[in-house]
Amino acid sequence: MADELIIAVDGMGGDAAPEMVVHGVAISHERNPEARFLVFGDEALIAPELAKYDRLKDACRLVHADVSVAMDDRPSQALRRGRRKSSMWMAIAAVKEGEAHAAVSAGNTGALMAMAKVILKTVDGIERPAIAAMWPTLRGESIVLDVGATIGVDAQQLVEFAVMGEAMSRTIYGLSRPTVGLLNIGVEEVKGLDEVKHAAQLLKESNLPIEYYGFVEGDDIGRGTVDVVVAEGFSGNIALKTAEGTAKQIAAYLRAAMSRTLLSRIGYVFARGAFNILREKLDPRTMNGGVFLGLNGVVIKSHGSADEIGFASAIDLAADMVRNDLVARIKRDLGRYHAPADAAAAQEVGIGTS
Amino acid sequence: MADELIIAVDGMGGDAAPEMVVHGVAISHERNPEARFLVFGDEALIAPELAKYDRLKDACRLVHADVSVAMDDRPSQALRRGRRKSSMWMAIAAVKEGEAHAAVSAGNTGALMAMAKVILKTVDGIERPAIAAMWPTLRGESIVLDVGATIGVDAQQLVEFAVMGEAMSRTIYGLSRPTVGLLNIGVEEVKGLDEVKHAAQLLKESNLPIEYYGFVEGDDIGRGTVDVVVAEGFSGNIALKTAEGTAKQIAAYLRAAMSRTLLSRIGYVFARGAFNILREKLDPRTMNGGVFLGLNGVVIKSHGSADEIGFASAIDLAADMVRNDLVARIKRDLGRYHAPADAAAAQEVGIGTS
Repeated sequence: MADELIIAVDGMGGDAAPEMVVHGVAISHERNPEARFLVFGDEALIAPELAKYDRLKDACRLVHADVSVAMDDRPSQALRRGRRKSSMWMAIAAVKEGEAHAAVSAGNTGALMAMAKVILKTVDGIERPAIAAMWPTLRGESIVLDVGATIGVDAQQLVEFAVMGEAMSRTIYGLSRPTVGLLNIGVEEVKGLDEVKHAAQLLKESNLPIEYYGFVEGDDIGRGTVDVVVAEGFSGNIALKTAEGTAKQIAAYLRAAMSRTLLSRIGYVFARGAFNILREKLDPRTMNGGVFLGLNGVVIKSHGSADEIGFASAIDLAADMVRNDLVARIKRDLGRYHAPADAAAAQEVGIGTS
Repeated sequence: MADELIIAVDGMGGDAAPEMVVHGVAISHERNPEARFLVFGDEALIAPELAKYDRLKDACRLVHADVSVAMDDRPSQALRRGRRKSSMWMAIAAVKEGEAHAAVSAGNTGALMAMAKVILKTVDGIERPAIAAMWPTLRGESIVLDVGATIGVDAQQLVEFAVMGEAMSRTIYGLSRPTVGLLNIGVEEVKGLDEVKHAAQLLKESNLPIEYYGFVEGDDIGRGTVDVVVAEGFSGNIALKTAEGTAKQIAAYLRAAMSRTLLSRIGYVFARGAFNILREKLDPRTMNGGVFLGLNGVVIKSHGSADEIGFASAIDLAADMVRNDLVARIKRDLGRYHAPADAAAAQEVGIGTS
């Protein structure tokens, strides 16, 4: 598959699937004309959608799947009902079988992660995969991980997140020495969770070739203080959702303020171009797509509520990851980093290696 | 002190103390002309500041303190160095001694909480005090607690936070049945921390007269989904700081967009009124002040980087708490709630009472 780019798509995942999914494929295909797509799902529902886009005829292959994972299925339920015969499973399995280079789904996050772990397995040296988000900042873009795959990780797992996030940052942004920070709280009385403090010690004392910056706080994320923000999944998810909520809230304030008086409405007309730029900057759809890191394959999770524009961004992201060979880079980095890191960590802070 | 309102002020706390503190007192005094102030701190530094404001002459009494707690002192250090003779300690002690109704400090949060616990003690039925923040939302204002006093709380402590936050909401916003939600993550695989799940069970099954809404996610805070958001201090602090950072980030985007072209600059001139309204809405200084809940007395923490306007807001908040007798209300509610809650909780989920 050397010069090809094949993306497996879960046709049934997402609130507005399959219509939104197929439309998203069509949009992304225009930007990635060399890409081919395997769309998995209910043939009776998807075929009419595909028929709407002439250009997709040669670029898409529809593969029927009997089962669709519901947005509210528990992961265990989804695994039981959806093993082998769900569109979600089949999309990931296509990556495993070498039929596709990446899988994209807007379905149930927990089910997607559970299936991805079962099918693709975690990379050697990674205990638990993480979900990485790309976060717009005042300096550009940062990577924040984990934003919800794990809760209750230990220090060593946080260090693994640091290694993976750093590799992703070099891969997709081309940075040579991305800086890495650990998300913590700044209240002096309680200098954060023990795991976070311990991870800081590991990162400082180990011989990992990582540009470790130190602790960062919630307001450092949007400021772009570091290129990679490492967090445990619970607080990482809360940070991500809180930022999304705040952005929506301010956009609503702004709309209300601009429509308040005749003068402000006139001002709006003049400044429309500026508002459009701002709207694009704040459009969560252009940043849609959580990257599953730590698996033997590329899996991208789109927001369940994504529209076709958002879903197309998630496909673009998958294509980017494949072109830049992210998985191979992470494996190489981990291979290079993990052994000495373990040894150094064990030696320097007196813990056993795993 | 029945008809009086006396606020004890730590004159040496905050990045720009004491100048900023005294200026803040002067601003708040204009809005609370009946209030009297005890300002604690280095006489040589504060007296010249007080001399700048004629009107404060009768409203303020300066009490010399030998020691100032540094912003980066550890709480244990601050307690050792600052016991009895620091401006921070003396301000809190004035509340304990009945010389003041509330204490306000922009100093070191950890030290302030540590001293407040030692001097004022926690209210019966509260294991650990929390810091509550008032959060502007699309529906008005919500209370979020804890935003950084505690990490690693258990389910029973989260329930105590719910009781205190609910009492504060009724007290300062006059709501009769404020709704209460538990901050959690929505990823299906991992339905949040065990403590949070357990607290949900306690709130649902107990006979607390609390309008328990259920779990809320990060984006629900700004949306105003519930009146009181209960969180463990680590994630609560990260949510707060992330929202502050996002607001600053968007304000910077907006400024850049509006100054980009001649048209947008003209638009800005027309819409200046609207922008001023937005600026006020986003001004963190109007919301400055974390309320320490669960202590036998009112203590308000101002942002360390607050300016005089922010510090004046923190004083206003303290005055509000005193006028509405928050501490007595919390005690009454806890007395009414705690015993049955404990018993019900123990009975229904099979845990021992504490």
